[in-house]
Amino acid sequence: MDIWEGIRTKHSIRAFAQTPIAEGEARQILDAGRRAPSGFNAQPWYFIAVRDRAMLHELSTIGRSTRHVAGAALCVLILSPDRETNFWRNLFDAGQAATYLMLAAHELGIASCPGTVYEPVRARDLLGFPDDWKPYILISFGYPDPADPRLGTGKGGRKPFEEVVRWEKW
Amino acid sequence: MDIWEGIRTKHSIRAFAQTPIAEGEARQILDAGRRAPSGFNAQPWYFIAVRDRAMLHELSTIGRSTRHVAGAALCVLILSPDRETNFWRNLFDAGQAATYLMLAAHELGIASCPGTVYEPVRARDLLGFPDDWKPYILISFGYPDPADPRLGTGKGGRKPFEEVVRWEKW
Repeated sequence: MDIWEGIRTKHSIRAFAQTPIAEGEARQILDAGRRAPSGFNAQPWYFIAVRDRAMLHELSTIGRSTRHVAGAALCVLILSPDRETNFWRNLFDAGQAATYLMLAAHELGIASCPGTVYEPVRARDLLGFPDDWKPYILISFGYPDPADPRLGTGKGGRKPFEEVVRWEKW
Repeated sequence: MDIWEGIRTKHSIRAFAQTPIAEGEARQILDAGRRAPSGFNAQPWYFIAVRDRAMLHELSTIGRSTRHVAGAALCVLILSPDRETNFWRNLFDAGQAATYLMLAAHELGIASCPGTVYEPVRARDLLGFPDDWKPYILISFGYPDPADPRLGTGKGGRKPFEEVVRWEKW
């Protein structure tokens, strides 16, 4: 799948088939995240990859829009060793890593959906990362559920080009 | 170019050829950014696309690592209508848009390099966006300078997979 096609056709999907994600494909998705760009090449992201069904159920409750995690075949938590001064940069870089993870999955036919972590302490209790590490986001991965009525509808849409882009000046 | 190849081969490049970027290719890069994912599909990003040589020179001085903008064929400023409560999300989403812009360019043979805006007031004076809008980052775009000694060296490198990824728990 070429990049432009990937960019045009990837949409968040929240309903997943029960098909597991093979080890090799999980590794390729994670390796894509590892290769994402970052400010000063700091690579501030770390990934906890969860496939355990009971843990996926627990993680589905740590955000306001993370219910989809319960049905995922794989969930990746992006976190950083957060220092106050790098907060800005780390968050921007977490966004860069997220798209690399999701685009690489899309090329493999694997759908995804991100969800912000609203309960960092609970995430820490569940996953055991150190106190001064900051969890940003969970991303669910799985093969799309073929019975999902929203599949292929391209739900969401985008603002028109002319609204989003200005040439030369505001 | 397939997505995995793009992810493997894109590196930041700071030295650009003098070749201009055609209108159609500039629009495709910007359209890729417009199609990036965002929290709750809020699409909080806006892009100011600059090709004017004098303005590129001015913009090259508004960050600590934005000198490359002076030689770019195109520079895109990502900015958001920043409200305190959305700051987090907007910054993460700006990172998502940045990778879409840069990966789409890479497929067209166009190199890129981001640089954080350290002088938002000066950016505003130059580009005329409203007071309550927040400029996050500049991205330079241009065809790579074939004389760049760093070209093709894959400078940067990444942490090993085993350092970045944990399975199931920390």
